[in-house]
This record gives sequence, C-alpha cells and structure tokens, in this order.
Amino acid sequence: MELGVGDDAAIFNLDSGYQLVTTTDTLSEGVHFFKDDSPENIAYKSLVVNLSDIAAMGSIAKFFTLAITLPKLDEIWLKKFSESLKETSKKYNVSLIGGDTTRGPLNITITMMGIVEKSKAIKRSGAKKGDNIYVSGEIGDAALCLKKINKGEKPLKAEIIKLNRPLPRLELGSALKGLASSCIDISDGLEQDLSHIIKASKVGAVIDIQKLPLSQSMIKYIKDNDDWSIPLCGGDDYELCFTASENYDSEITNIAKFCKIRITKIGVINDSKNLKINGYDSQGESYRHF
Amino acid sequence: MELGVGDDAAIFNLDSGYQLVTTTDTLSEGVHFFKDDSPENIAYKSLVVNLSDIAAMGSIAKFFTLAITLPKLDEIWLKKFSESLKETSKKYNVSLIGGDTTRGPLNITITMMGIVEKSKAIKRSGAKKGDNIYVSGEIGDAALCLKKINKGEKPLKAEIIKLNRPLPRLELGSALKGLASSCIDISDGLEQDLSHIIKASKVGAVIDIQKLPLSQSMIKYIKDNDDWSIPLCGGDDYELCFTASENYDSEITNIAKFCKIRITKIGVINDSKNLKINGYDSQGESYRHF
Repeated sequence: MELGVGDDAAIFNLDSGYQLVTTTDTLSEGVHFFKDDSPENIAYKSLVVNLSDIAAMGSIAKFFTLAITLPKLDEIWLKKFSESLKETSKKYNVSLIGGDTTRGPLNITITMMGIVEKSKAIKRSGAKKGDNIYVSGEIGDAALCLKKINKGEKPLKAEIIKLNRPLPRLELGSALKGLASSCIDISDGLEQDLSHIIKASKVGAVIDIQKLPLSQSMIKYIKDNDDWSIPLCGGDDYELCFTASENYDSEITNIAKFCKIRITKIGVINDSKNLKINGYDSQGESYRHF
Repeated sequence: MELGVGDDAAIFNLDSGYQLVTTTDTLSEGVHFFKDDSPENIAYKSLVVNLSDIAAMGSIAKFFTLAITLPKLDEIWLKKFSESLKETSKKYNVSLIGGDTTRGPLNITITMMGIVEKSKAIKRSGAKKGDNIYVSGEIGDAALCLKKINKGEKPLKAEIIKLNRPLPRLELGSALKGLASSCIDISDGLEQDLSHIIKASKVGAVIDIQKLPLSQSMIKYIKDNDDWSIPLCGGDDYELCFTASENYDSEITNIAKFCKIRITKIGVINDSKNLKINGYDSQGESYRHF
C-alpha cells in the first residue's frame, strides 16, 4: 500500500490480472449487538462479518475502511475496541486504510476490499442443475444463543462463542475457488441465503432437514421444541453455503480435512426454480432487515 | 465492472499503472444534517463529501458502497433518497457497487473508490517552503448558514445552497495533478485543514485574512460582527486548499479560467512548523469531531 490512514483517501497499487472485491456491512446497536456487549466483541464481529463476505467470493481479504459513529468519546471503550480490531486485523492479515469518526448513536460500518485472480471469484449465480449443496460448520447455534438471551435463559458457552466470535471461512472460500459453482455466507439464515443462490442462478433446490449439520445442543433444542426454524432461518452463522458438481465431491472431502472444517452435503440443485425443504412445511422465518 | 450490487461483494478489474484511491465518510443525523432535511439533500451531500476527498487527491472517482441505517422503512423517504443518489451518481459518473441496509438511528456511510495514475495522487505531505497557498471558491458560507439556522435567523438562498449542495471540485483536483504539491478539502475549516497539510508536510505557513475569498454576505457578516472565525474555522465548505510552486502560478490562473472556479492565493509555506494567520489573533475554533 502506498498510503494508508491520514490523507483524504488511501492509495493502493493495482496489479493487472487481479480483480478488486468490495463489500460493506454495518453493525448497529440493538440489531447486531446488545448495548452492553463488549467493545472487543463488537470490533471482532464488525470485521468478521465483512471478512465472511470476502470468503464467500473465494477471495483474499486485503484492506478495509472503518466508519464509526459514537455517542460520546469513551476512551476506555475506544481503546478496547481498537485493540481488538488491531488484533483481529493482524490475525486475518488485513490493513485499516482509512476511516471516519462521527458523533451519534453507536454504528459501525466496515468496507472490506480483497483481491482475486481475474474471473475466479465465486458468485451466487453459478449453481447448475445436479450440483450438490453443501454447508460448512454447524448452523443455528448463534440464533439459538440469541433466542435464549431474549428469553432470559442462559446460553451455553459454545453458543455464545458462535454468536460473538463467528469464524470467517477464508481458507475454505479460497480452497473452493475453481470447484464451487456458487457460494454465499449464511448471515441471514440458510433458507434465505440459499434462496439468493437459486434466484441468482435461475435454478431450484431441494434440501433435507435431516441432513443439516447441527450441534448437540441444537439437536436437543429441536427434539424438545420441534422447531426447525432456528437452524433453517436463524442468521448470524457466517458459515458458507455452496454448490459444486458431484465430480468434485471427493475433492471437497479433502478440503474439509485440510481446512479442519465439517462440510455437509444437504441437498441438490434442480431446475424447479423453488427451494423445497424436505421435512419442513412451515413458512420461512429468516431474518428480514425490516 | 464485472459484478455490482447483489452478490456478497462487488468485483472490479484492476489495471496496472493505476492506483486505487479509497475514502469513507459518515453523515449522521443532528451532526451533518437536521432531522427534517430533505432525503434528496442528504443523499446528495453523502455522496459529495466523499467525492470531495477523491477530488483532493487529484483522482477520478469510479464507484462507491452505501451503508445506510434507517429508523423505519419509509418508502417515500427512501424513494426520494435513491432518486437523488442515482441522479448525483450519474452527474459525477460514479457507480453504486454494493451496500447494506440496517435498522437504527439514521446514519449514512459511503465508501468511495477512485483511480489515479501511479504516483500521481496529490497528498497532504508534499508542501515545500516557498510554495503559494491557494483556496478554491469562497469560504465560510456553509458555516454562516448553519450559524443563522441555529440562531433562528433566515439564511440567504445562496448560503443554503452552499450548505446543502456543496460542489465537489473534481475537475479542479484532476487539473491540479502534477502541479499542486499538496491538497486537502476544507471539510473541517481552513485553519484545521491547512494545519493538516503543514503537519503532514513538516512545514509552516502564513496566511492573511484580508486575502480570504469571501462572498458579499460573508463580508457583511464580518463587518457587522468582527468575527473571522466563520471563514477561518467553519467547516462544510468542501473547497480545496492546495499548495504549489510560484512557477505554476500562471498555469493555476489558467486552470481557474478553464474550470470556471475562483482560485485565490492566500499565503505562503515557510519552515516555521506553525500556522500564522495575519490579522487574526484568536484561538482557532474549527470543527472538532468530539
């Protein structure tokens, strides 16, 4: 980078043969985090939700801008926020290249930029009839955690980690480049995000609830409540949902081993233009922004 | 652009020989605009304050992301906002490449990206001893407008335009590339923004209040109130303050004619490390973010 924070704008050299990949996500108090959430967790999550989008494109995250609106100048809060942001940036090898600080209700917007070799980014629009549908990790725990908090129950430690410290699947996204025909990060819930893939790809899909990758506590919750909406429609997982031809199935098994991530085949792409969820007949209740 | 709004991230081809220039600015209710300001003006200003930063770098604005936090889904408000954003984008030839919509107190963050030929961006850090200091347009009217509104007085129409519809000096910024040794946009007030230049350039400066480019109403205000703080420290002007060697003085006069912009020489860079304002002995009262 030629010039980072401190001028009107940052400057970055452009190398031909690559493409710039850009995404932006806002975290707002009361929606994406609670008033009393730690500044460390807020900083971590602000960065990771953006890294997750770069991962879903099979790209390498490079740098980001931070626009933060703060109700007051709380130096202790800011110091903790900054340290966590710095630590997380270092971990994922991304650099802060610019920012803006404003006064107002707490609001954090990060714009993340990454690069990818020309035409190699994994888009939502490439899913083909017959492709398998896969999901990384286990889904629903973040939403279950949120549900427990809202009901005044105490979530498990593992669920709290899933909500506050989701992992951006950068290594997986990068490994899927050239294999996956489409990919999306599950931020708004599997049902809604897979629907984005089938809409963009002009295809349909059938998945099976019995195949969803679930944690032990999620399995117990479903058994006790007969409520599949949490893993199907709960957001905040930041796992990847992707499609790939059956030809790549064994390679995907190897990637799962290499990345040490559970990868589960949950269904198949068809040409129906609809999403059918075998074993689930309720209306989707995925996260709606409004 | 290969891929705009609608995927996890946008994709842009990188051409070698160029550099990417990135800036981000937030507009927050009660700070950058009033609760009852029109959505058209808010959209316009959100875009223009970012374009102004790209202009100050002598770069060409290309595309932007929009992160908007809204208290509720007001479709009429959003339609007006979107139309104004679209119209302004078209006027300045920039494309929306991604965004995020969230619920919460009104907050708008735009991240603007532009390009510039390698090593041609105008930075804050290049001012040299002996360089002239110039300012574009007339300064202080936006701050005067704000002062009148806050005092319950009625501002002039021209002042309201200066506050709500500032012009990004893109053509001027581009023309100054290769001539100006440093440049900044006056968003926080001349005194503060020129101080950024002298700090980054490790030089000093002396300017003369009698040389400041002022509108007739500004001249009258100063005559009536003996208050130079408005043009010196009032923000929101989005004019450019830049430095250039005396050798380029006639060329700068030509640029002013070509761009149809008033350009005024207000002082000289020296090696004092301080900013001296002849004719003004008060402490600066430039905009502070906190």
